[in-house]
Amino acid sequence: MAADPVASGGTPHLGVGMIGYAFMGAAHSQAWRSAGRFFDLPLLPRMSVLCGRNRDAATAAAAKLGWERVETDWRAVVAADDVGIVDVSSPGDTHAEIAIAALEAGKHVLCEKPLANSVAEAELMVAAAERAAANGVRSMVGFNYRRVPALSLARRLVAEGKIGQIRHVRAQYLQDWIVDPQFPLVWRLQKDKAGSGALGDIGAHIVDAAQFVAGDVLTGVSAVTETFVKERPLPEASSGLSATGGQSTGPATGQVTVDDAALFVGRFAGGALGSFEATRFATGRKNTIRLELNGSLGSIAFDFEAMNELQVHDAAGIGGDPSVAGFTRVIVTEPTHPYIDAWWPPGHPIGYEHTFTHEVVDLIRDIDAGRDPWPSFADGLQVQRVLAAVEESAGAGSRWTAIPA
Amino acid sequence: MAADPVASGGTPHLGVGMIGYAFMGAAHSQAWRSAGRFFDLPLLPRMSVLCGRNRDAATAAAAKLGWERVETDWRAVVAADDVGIVDVSSPGDTHAEIAIAALEAGKHVLCEKPLANSVAEAELMVAAAERAAANGVRSMVGFNYRRVPALSLARRLVAEGKIGQIRHVRAQYLQDWIVDPQFPLVWRLQKDKAGSGALGDIGAHIVDAAQFVAGDVLTGVSAVTETFVKERPLPEASSGLSATGGQSTGPATGQVTVDDAALFVGRFAGGALGSFEATRFATGRKNTIRLELNGSLGSIAFDFEAMNELQVHDAAGIGGDPSVAGFTRVIVTEPTHPYIDAWWPPGHPIGYEHTFTHEVVDLIRDIDAGRDPWPSFADGLQVQRVLAAVEESAGAGSRWTAIPA
Amino acid sequence: MAADPVASGGTPHLGVGMIGYAFMGAAHSQAWRSAGRFFDLPLLPRMSVLCGRNRDAATAAAAKLGWERVETDWRAVVAADDVGIVDVSSPGDTHAEIAIAALEAGKHVLCEKPLANSVAEAELMVAAAERAAANGVRSMVGFNYRRVPALSLARRLVAEGKIGQIRHVRAQYLQDWIVDPQFPLVWRLQKDKAGSGALGDIGAHIVDAAQFVAGDVLTGVSAVTETFVKERPLPEASSGLSATGGQSTGPATGQVTVDDAALFVGRFAGGALGSFEATRFATGRKNTIRLELNGSLGSIAFDFEAMNELQVHDAAGIGGDPSVAGFTRVIVTEPTHPYIDAWWPPGHPIGYEHTFTHEVVDLIRDIDAGRDPWPSFADGLQVQRVLAAVEESAGAGSRWTAIPA
Amino acid sequence: MAADPVASGGTPHLGVGMIGYAFMGAAHSQAWRSAGRFFDLPLLPRMSVLCGRNRDAATAAAAKLGWERVETDWRAVVAADDVGIVDVSSPGDTHAEIAIAALEAGKHVLCEKPLANSVAEAELMVAAAERAAANGVRSMVGFNYRRVPALSLARRLVAEGKIGQIRHVRAQYLQDWIVDPQFPLVWRLQKDKAGSGALGDIGAHIVDAAQFVAGDVLTGVSAVTETFVKERPLPEASSGLSATGGQSTGPATGQVTVDDAALFVGRFAGGALGSFEATRFATGRKNTIRLELNGSLGSIAFDFEAMNELQVHDAAGIGGDPSVAGFTRVIVTEPTHPYIDAWWPPGHPIGYEHTFTHEVVDLIRDIDAGRDPWPSFADGLQVQRVLAAVEESAGAGSRWTAIPA
Repeated sequence: MAADPVASGGTPHLGVGMIGYAFMGAAHSQAWRSAGRFFDLPLLPRMSVLCGRNRDAATAAAAKLGWERVETDWRAVVAADDVGIVDVSSPGDTHAEIAIAALEAGKHVLCEKPLANSVAEAELMVAAAERAAANGVRSMVGFNYRRVPALSLARRLVAEGKIGQIRHVRAQYLQDWIVDPQFPLVWRLQKDKAGSGALGDIGAHIVDAAQFVAGDVLTGVSAVTETFVKERPLPEASSGLSATGGQSTGPATGQVTVDDAALFVGRFAGGALGSFEATRFATGRKNTIRLELNGSLGSIAFDFEAMNELQVHDAAGIGGDPSVAGFTRVIVTEPTHPYIDAWWPPGHPIGYEHTFTHEVVDLIRDIDAGRDPWPSFADGLQVQRVLAAVEESAGAGSRWTAIPA
Repeated sequence: MAADPVASGGTPHLGVGMIGYAFMGAAHSQAWRSAGRFFDLPLLPRMSVLCGRNRDAATAAAAKLGWERVETDWRAVVAADDVGIVDVSSPGDTHAEIAIAALEAGKHVLCEKPLANSVAEAELMVAAAERAAANGVRSMVGFNYRRVPALSLARRLVAEGKIGQIRHVRAQYLQDWIVDPQFPLVWRLQKDKAGSGALGDIGAHIVDAAQFVAGDVLTGVSAVTETFVKERPLPEASSGLSATGGQSTGPATGQVTVDDAALFVGRFAGGALGSFEATRFATGRKNTIRLELNGSLGSIAFDFEAMNELQVHDAAGIGGDPSVAGFTRVIVTEPTHPYIDAWWPPGHPIGYEHTFTHEVVDLIRDIDAGRDPWPSFADGLQVQRVLAAVEESAGAGSRWTAIPA
Repeated sequence: MAADPVASGGTPHLGVGMIGYAFMGAAHSQAWRSAGRFFDLPLLPRMSVLCGRNRDAATAAAAKLGWERVETDWRAVVAADDVGIVDVSSPGDTHAEIAIAALEAGKHVLCEKPLANSVAEAELMVAAAERAAANGVRSMVGFNYRRVPALSLARRLVAEGKIGQIRHVRAQYLQDWIVDPQFPLVWRLQKDKAGSGALGDIGAHIVDAAQFVAGDVLTGVSAVTETFVKERPLPEASSGLSATGGQSTGPATGQVTVDDAALFVGRFAGGALGSFEATRFATGRKNTIRLELNGSLGSIAFDFEAMNELQVHDAAGIGGDPSVAGFTRVIVTEPTHPYIDAWWPPGHPIGYEHTFTHEVVDLIRDIDAGRDPWPSFADGLQVQRVLAAVEESAGAGSRWTAIPA
Repeated sequence: MAADPVASGGTPHLGVGMIGYAFMGAAHSQAWRSAGRFFDLPLLPRMSVLCGRNRDAATAAAAKLGWERVETDWRAVVAADDVGIVDVSSPGDTHAEIAIAALEAGKHVLCEKPLANSVAEAELMVAAAERAAANGVRSMVGFNYRRVPALSLARRLVAEGKIGQIRHVRAQYLQDWIVDPQFPLVWRLQKDKAGSGALGDIGAHIVDAAQFVAGDVLTGVSAVTETFVKERPLPEASSGLSATGGQSTGPATGQVTVDDAALFVGRFAGGALGSFEATRFATGRKNTIRLELNGSLGSIAFDFEAMNELQVHDAAGIGGDPSVAGFTRVIVTEPTHPYIDAWWPPGHPIGYEHTFTHEVVDLIRDIDAGRDPWPSFADGLQVQRVLAAVEESAGAGSRWTAIPA
């Protein structure tokens, strides 16, 4: 596609090699495909190589998603001359090895979250990223929710001091896809593959989003975790990387080795209290991400069920009249809002996938400008440390557990 | 008023003696005044005596609120022949002494929440209530939110098994009346008078409401509390019992000795996880009480900002079609809803004060029927034990703290 | 009640005589009973006489609602020495005769809406009111929704120019109580008693509310009306004045002679376009009153399903930042809001009945101050003229029909 | 792009020639680009030719949007061998000529709405479409909102009889982009180019959506239209096809020759009443499309501000309990919902542009299957007739005006 001279308009290309092709692979493909069609980019992404262990499945995925060729060994992608950036969209247990190799081979890296399945792995990745950065090789961890325009706007307002000193941060990520005890034991329910359950999968997102919007970090936590359904039927066959899993096959069952839900309270460096909850057992909540910050001058609230809206409270009131105060529902689809001028006229919603496009756009611009993109691998490591402290506290009677700076 | 033969229609009276006349006193007065005008009652309340230490202030309040006469010593109320029930609406540090004396004098008692300022006091009150009950003397603690029709309906749906096994309970009570550091040090911010801060004042309400709707009790908690503003100006003069306090007077300041916010996670006897937050620092949230329960078959959500609504999720879907599922906004103002048939035609909202009317209606009917009203003093004690465990945990590095059954 | 010296505190009384005791009678009774308990009034209402044609029923109602004595002929009320104000809460076909007689007898009058069943009657009433006013006798028509605090606030904001020049007024009053074709032919469905159907019963409210908030009047309309169910079972027996009616009795049916729904577009004197809809066939909408005004600088929106909220849009944006603009959900329960300081602390909702209390409070203060209360009978007549124009247009192929000034 | 053998996977191509490249051109490009990446299609669209009168601008647009080559004369597109379908995304005054020529040349046609600027043109187009259909050549008019999944679901529920007999249809399309009187006189405000103002631009959408969901047609209307700002500054230069227009240049002004707002009431063949409003002067409403249908068994409500939600009311109540009834907020992002299984896991929103992808997907499948796609040109003509009746009524004192079947 990108090779077409009319289509590229003379802009140089950036060859992309993507590892993995499940849910995240599809989302990233749409981002690479769309970024240059809406945004003015200094480098046009070229969807060069898709990598998967099973050649037939990977070939079918490449045809569907629009990649030029296929590899079955990620090392070939890392080594490929036409690949300028490696997109690591495979499960968490593979991130460290691939990302480090890619960085050492001089390829930029976009790595899906969570950065790794352990703090130790994440530390190695950060070290590799720092060495690479010294050579102009860039890395980013894929906390895509930072680039929901409403949350980008929230960050801007907090940074401008609009809500004053933050007192409370309240974050929830609620799903319900394993409420049924007959839902099978997919890879996401196995600790060796997934690292953790709701905590790492969705808890990581709200930890990152909350810290990002607050512009602050957690310094300690007290936590509980729970596995409501401890044994589940084995899936019929490998369900690949799919979150939605396969069908149960009968009597064979296995142990669920990750958490179904994780709840914790925490303190931020700046003095705010935090309340966090991540669960896959909130019946009726499909992908609900709620974030509220209360400050001395105002508040901000967000709910991903209405992803194009931000609720903003200014205690000074509308037009400076404190008796006309309340939460203002800002529909974040105006040309003045982050990322929106590249899309549609006022009032036209964007969707989930656009957050990945924004991620890719910012990453490409940073690569071209020689800037370090954010969130960095160091940001990913810090989130990993929060998750580790949550697990440690939960395993020690909810004891207060500090998070290393 | 109630003495008028036309007005009473021949129904016997129940003389009420109320201690205190601030916020709660006004709310209770409206309840006693209105109950028999809308509901068919076996005993008509007669607003016989109002009691306050300052005779002039009490006399003015009695004239305003419509009480027949005034006493300045609560002992006179407890001893009065024309008083059948004592309504204890004074601050928490006075509850135990008055309520126990009244019960021992054979008077029914309605005691505002929190039942007491300590577990020890509450235990004495429960013992007194049990002795009195053996003699047909009734007692109730005033957790009025149980009688918001939406929460009464929520309880009914949970009890009927509509949401299945409960996995999550999520409760928040958010206010913002002391965000300003210049707000003065009123009695509610002093531990000796108020017992605790946000925890006992508003946290008690959500602990009770959550346990009530769930039909279950907390067995342990892990908590943090915080006092964001540690020193405040002294109020100009005694601000009475008013929550909204007085004005600051200048340089003199004092120590805030209660919590501004309390956050905790907990476990219920039935296996659910609980998440609780009570704060007076949630800017823009005036009196926001949120409660959500997620069960294996459905969910329920409530927000007091929309007190006449209950959100109900049935995973089976509308008309049994699971693809047409979601949270249903039930506007709880239909004649088929709890308490509503006594009020207005379909779709006409009721307000905060009506919850006290419902409380009084149920209490009078129970007294007449010789039944024990709910919530009982024992229920109030159990809430007190939860609050005590929260304080203990918060003082011990958030250590998991069991709640005695 | 009011005769008690403690209760009145020395304030003079205003004897009230109320005609009718159904839905409106109960609402007005609660208003007369509560007004002086929350607001400081120069005259304390005394619930002196209740009037109903059936002595037994009226006596039971008086006992229930708390009235001192009963009359069966409204002329006795109008003539009574202890009656200072006549509250006309009977059906519309009785308004003119009673109100005019009362005014001529020197009694103040509070007349429920619609002012009358015809323009001709309403004109006679206005003439009587003007004659009476010259003698210091006051009159008010009971458009209670003007005194929903959110709509009072809306009026204030529009009057202050906050939304600029009004372009659009959009109003809907949606109910669903006669969707079932088996619902019987109650008096509200008979033209001779009710005057009209949805149009006069609920359409009158939104015409008044829209004109009130806009501070402007309709000058012409184009309309359609419809009777979806043209024949209904006769009610078992007289259903009194109740809107909710009786049960059907079998095969006997009768003709519905009023509209089920009325829709019209209109133009305001100031250039705004209006869109109005009143219906009893909006399934699921119990008592939904929506009002939205769009002006050159901002907008205002209201929905009675959330009666304590007003949505306010300021195009200038929050803190003057137009990229942070949207509809602000003002929860109108703060002490700075209209009427609220007499009730509860911040964030505590009031209900439907409170609008009648506010009506009575303002009326009593105006009587004492020698001011003309609003809405006046002239306001009621003007609404009547709008309704008449709607009927005329609907009967003439929706032809544009001017409204006399 | 599509020529790549891996990318196509052997599926035959459908060459697309698109006329116009402004707002609709960008939206359609994203649809043609994405359709085959998410949906399984029998024919893969190939973005062959983009056509615009200005070669430089068209070439830049083609590079940006990803089209293979450029033409400046639409006749060349219609004649091109590699073009199988012509996508008419140019202004309304060009639709008839291009679409008819394309159909006569045996090309399938996707024509943006409104179908034409007059009934006469639309009739010619329908005749051409019918002749072409006899030869297997297909045509569709681009009412994209039919394929918002929430509205597709609404149609399904209505067709299944879930809301019973429809009594009311209420539709509003509210924008605010020309509230400022200094906004210039862009082509959309000129009758010769745009045909009409808010009526044809956005009113057409709600007429189509309302009739589509209701499964019924309007038979007559009574209307008013208004041009609030009658004279506007001329734009600096041709603003192309952009809705957002150019900047004003100074003193030169011109006459606005289209309506700013159109309001009408109508009757449907099946007996329902309709209320419609389209305006560009609803301050704070950016692209608000509201649709509500009330039926004898239930109701449905939609608001494009929350495009992934449908409100569904079933009068039978949740689980058959009528006391637990209300509007259910169905978040239409589940795999069981229309079109959604091709996109993301449960709970992940889609955006505005996806409606065009759905349009293209259905059109391609219909072409392959030899079926007539919907909405047809005949559907487009019928909407045109409604718009013409609205204009006629508005010009004749709102007189009731029948719509020819």
